[in-house]
Amino acid sequence: MSLCPASSPSPVLPTERAEVALRPVAAGTVRVTEGFWAQRMSTNRQVTLPLGAQQLESAGNLENLRIAAGQQEGLPRGPEFADSDVYKWLEAAAWDYACSRDAASLEQQLQIVRLLEAAQKPDGYLNAVIPLRSGQRYQNLPWSHEHYCAGHLIQAAVALARSAGRTELLEIAVGLADHMVEVFGPEKNRALDGHPVIESALVELYRETGTRAYLELAAWFVQARGAATIRSEIAGPSYFSDRVPVRQAQTVEGHAVRAMYLAAGAADLAVETGDTELLVALEQQYQQMRTTKQYITGGLGSRWEGESFGSPYELPNERAYAETCAAVGAVQWAWRMLLATGKPVYADQIEHILFNGFLAGVSLEGDKFFYVNPLQVSSTTQPEGDRDPAAGRNRWFDCACCPPNLMRMLASLESYMVTTGSAETGGVQLHQYASGTVEAAGFILHIRTDYPWSGQVQVSIEAAPDHSAAISLRIPAWAAGAKVGGQLAAAGQYWTAVRRWRPGQSLQLQLPMRPRLLYADPRVEAARGSVAVARGPLIYAFESCDQPSGSVLENLVLDTAAPITVEHRHDLLGGVSILQMSGFLQRPRGDDPEELYTEKASASPIGGRALLTAIPYYAWANRGPQAMRVWIPATGGPADGR
Amino acid sequence: MSLCPASSPSPVLPTERAEVALRPVAAGTVRVTEGFWAQRMSTNRQVTLPLGAQQLESAGNLENLRIAAGQQEGLPRGPEFADSDVYKWLEAAAWDYACSRDAASLEQQLQIVRLLEAAQKPDGYLNAVIPLRSGQRYQNLPWSHEHYCAGHLIQAAVALARSAGRTELLEIAVGLADHMVEVFGPEKNRALDGHPVIESALVELYRETGTRAYLELAAWFVQARGAATIRSEIAGPSYFSDRVPVRQAQTVEGHAVRAMYLAAGAADLAVETGDTELLVALEQQYQQMRTTKQYITGGLGSRWEGESFGSPYELPNERAYAETCAAVGAVQWAWRMLLATGKPVYADQIEHILFNGFLAGVSLEGDKFFYVNPLQVSSTTQPEGDRDPAAGRNRWFDCACCPPNLMRMLASLESYMVTTGSAETGGVQLHQYASGTVEAAGFILHIRTDYPWSGQVQVSIEAAPDHSAAISLRIPAWAAGAKVGGQLAAAGQYWTAVRRWRPGQSLQLQLPMRPRLLYADPRVEAARGSVAVARGPLIYAFESCDQPSGSVLENLVLDTAAPITVEHRHDLLGGVSILQMSGFLQRPRGDDPEELYTEKASASPIGGRALLTAIPYYAWANRGPQAMRVWIPATGGPADGR
Repeated sequence: MSLCPASSPSPVLPTERAEVALRPVAAGTVRVTEGFWAQRMSTNRQVTLPLGAQQLESAGNLENLRIAAGQQEGLPRGPEFADSDVYKWLEAAAWDYACSRDAASLEQQLQIVRLLEAAQKPDGYLNAVIPLRSGQRYQNLPWSHEHYCAGHLIQAAVALARSAGRTELLEIAVGLADHMVEVFGPEKNRALDGHPVIESALVELYRETGTRAYLELAAWFVQARGAATIRSEIAGPSYFSDRVPVRQAQTVEGHAVRAMYLAAGAADLAVETGDTELLVALEQQYQQMRTTKQYITGGLGSRWEGESFGSPYELPNERAYAETCAAVGAVQWAWRMLLATGKPVYADQIEHILFNGFLAGVSLEGDKFFYVNPLQVSSTTQPEGDRDPAAGRNRWFDCACCPPNLMRMLASLESYMVTTGSAETGGVQLHQYASGTVEAAGFILHIRTDYPWSGQVQVSIEAAPDHSAAISLRIPAWAAGAKVGGQLAAAGQYWTAVRRWRPGQSLQLQLPMRPRLLYADPRVEAARGSVAVARGPLIYAFESCDQPSGSVLENLVLDTAAPITVEHRHDLLGGVSILQMSGFLQRPRGDDPEELYTEKASASPIGGRALLTAIPYYAWANRGPQAMRVWIPATGGPADGR
Repeated sequence: MSLCPASSPSPVLPTERAEVALRPVAAGTVRVTEGFWAQRMSTNRQVTLPLGAQQLESAGNLENLRIAAGQQEGLPRGPEFADSDVYKWLEAAAWDYACSRDAASLEQQLQIVRLLEAAQKPDGYLNAVIPLRSGQRYQNLPWSHEHYCAGHLIQAAVALARSAGRTELLEIAVGLADHMVEVFGPEKNRALDGHPVIESALVELYRETGTRAYLELAAWFVQARGAATIRSEIAGPSYFSDRVPVRQAQTVEGHAVRAMYLAAGAADLAVETGDTELLVALEQQYQQMRTTKQYITGGLGSRWEGESFGSPYELPNERAYAETCAAVGAVQWAWRMLLATGKPVYADQIEHILFNGFLAGVSLEGDKFFYVNPLQVSSTTQPEGDRDPAAGRNRWFDCACCPPNLMRMLASLESYMVTTGSAETGGVQLHQYASGTVEAAGFILHIRTDYPWSGQVQVSIEAAPDHSAAISLRIPAWAAGAKVGGQLAAAGQYWTAVRRWRPGQSLQLQLPMRPRLLYADPRVEAARGSVAVARGPLIYAFESCDQPSGSVLENLVLDTAAPITVEHRHDLLGGVSILQMSGFLQRPRGDDPEELYTEKASASPIGGRALLTAIPYYAWANRGPQAMRVWIPATGGPADGR
């Protein structure tokens, strides 16, 4: 029984003319039916989306719309960009509807759409907060985020059209976009929104409607950025990704979420306009980000200050920001780069971010969130404010951008897993592994796997095209020693076979799941002398409650020479494979343990043996606030290599 | 020829009734005539103070006063608390006058005093910015800093009275303080200034004038703090040191400068009121700060965000804030704790902060400043904003609190070096070592030393009291193996001899100057696997221009087994002893140097030998912007101690 539509809705649908290496499965179906991600998507549907609707009510976002629609008296509540949370939730509900076909959910969405209809001004402008708060439109675009809100509205509208075939919201979005085309541009109002997202939204609206003016306005917004025209007393051009034009930038910088959204929009633009120079610049920027500014969890943006990227290798653990929204934005960017280039590094990135830095943003129960995703909480951490993860997960935030962002990613997850080849190469590419069915490019494939707990993936062919065609399987860069059908397959590449496939055939992919110790580049000072533990796509974390009783997490040292055992625990944290290994308890360092800095003579670091236990990073902070760490000091290590 | 007065002026003069262990040299003279600090004080006088006067003119601070005095039209420029820079400069000039007796300097000060006379309102209120900017007094004390400005005015007034015997500014200060006594208090306006300093200022004004109402108002301000009454949308109670009452706090937290000034004021209050409970709380807070929140440079406040202390052991190198003002505040607090308790740890702290974190705040030429004092700048650092030290030193800042703060500390440095005993113990205590003369407690002592380059200190007795009396010499905690007259003297304690001294006698102090490798507590992740190099009181730093040509600073590893050589270089950086040692050049880590995280197998860290050179940290950034580091990765180290 399939509740899903014949055609997979997708947030990113390049036009036929777009210069892409790979295409989303638009004329087929990708269904994840069982296992790890199916469970998360189900929780998203049953717990997180309904919770989101409640929170939009209690935090005032929906009330703001009623006020703007003239149905209620009062003043808007929440941040300037409160509307965007509604739109992200709508987008999430719409993508989810593609699978659930839940009529009540659709009706709930359409109720909000009717509110928006009533709130939209005759000229197309739509914002529930700004007119009532400042009286005037577009007076403070660096912070009012009117374009940002419009971008999220457009994305929600596209989602509702593609998943449910309902165009009411699309009409509102078109009205708003037409108004923007009227007002903004090189010969008109040249102001730029402080927070990108409108760029990718306008390209997608162009893809959905064919109206070229939207593409042109997106092109203007991307082109105009980088001339330091966004003025603010409290943030410089870097913060806004406005210091260097996108096509000249060598690195991502400033506010991480803004940088990710801008890059995603620029990638959309590059493929639709055949702008190879822009695409090459984006490849360089992604490479620089991945190799100098990304946490081992996939997290992005190391500074609380300005929610921003820091300098290369500036990756503190406890003060990591690594906003959940930045993980969402990075997956969106990576997906567009994968479509554009076909390079496996982008699919590796999607896997890595989703399983780690992204998924850590929501509790296993789906009812609490992290805004900030650190790599360490110490026993001595003093939490401060509603975003501080040291105080535990939160049901919502004053600035609630992350929860609905997480919802829309989980609801559209199936869209990021499989592609079909461009005209020349054809075939189907499996980028992510999850049990389910793929109908694409003439294939019907059934995938069975217990990934990420097991590295075995079976792909059974129910139907195949009546001509020679390619099946590609991504071999993750971490999977040295992977095999397909018993033959070694190179890691960090696609294993591809082009042949005439027969129904009943199957492929056996075997990814090596031995636990791995990972070391950081020595320039990452926060990881120096330490290791992180990984298995498959998962980065692991040490929570204090799992360590020997009476021990303090910060006093544990991992013995890199000892073996690591794997045990799958169905009873723990919704079912996880835990890793166990031997280490040491550090003794006090010398005569005066109260001294912060001492001469070597007084250091005496290693005490008795201790059994250390690690759980997947994504599952941390589900057993109450406690100490946690990803990087753990280790015997040996790079500093020990005389 | 002595230009200095018979009586040493001192910023902190406890009353006769105050419960202190030690007393400043009020009825004698401390003169630093030659050597390290004499050179800095001379530069302060000849370069920095005149530069400060120019900057106060060009940045508008003095113009603001003329506008307020009705001598000029216009609107005030600069931050709300622009007046405070004038007051700190005045205080600096006044302390300096005690030694220079420069009539032109005094006249320059008195010109400003006459401006202040004209600007003061009939009821005593005085602020050049707030009335013209907001129209109303005391409407936004968390950020207007009206009390903060008043505090600095009072401190300048006390300085001018004590050093020059001129009381014009003191009369203005008394008028303002009387006005504040009228307006603020438990039964009156209960608002608190967001930025402390008024507390210690009012206690000192009480000490100078005997007016008990000032002590009582200071007591109220200290007592009222910690009840989370300071409201701000952009900062929480921790930021303002307003989360926990001072007498209950276990740690310093929040904005570092605010915390230091508050603690200093609380210490003044504790000794004047015999409040032992408060003093014990401050001892605990200082201990906690020193052992969990202080950089090895003495720097304080690890976060750019909120210019604040972070959690214990949160001490990043490159993103260290360690504001110069926090170093000044910490010396002021430590001095008060030294007077109160007589414990050598506080004199050690003063030495350590002055020689390192404090002095790094000004260029060797005395003409450029650091607001922020990091422990590392990488080759890849991207500087941002006028406070970012990666861009080099700055002549002034939009918020220019640090330069005049530094000036007043240097100008009053002689006050922080020597004490006389309280009534019972008597005698004289030498806390800091510099060539010069001390006349105190019946002694005339001549001190000769080339400290900190040499550990030899000779104390010659020209005159002594005609009874048995104590001479105490501080043996720094780092000076294990120190000797006095050839006999071992315990480190971290005072060497004290009580006897009938004769003119012509002398004491030979010998502090061991072997270079030391220092390790941090393993919980300081930024220093893990690394060492810092120290000699005497000086912490050293590695600047890229001193390392082997073609090497990248981040690729150097220190060999902890190799000897360290010392060479004094008269030609370098105003004369410094450099340290040289052997290390290694790191090779690329593996097959793919572009990967940020790799498995151990690919790590291959150590390449050829390299000669590493370190200079004193205080002297860094005097040869143009370049990479620098205090902590350097090292072979061996705590993580290697199986």
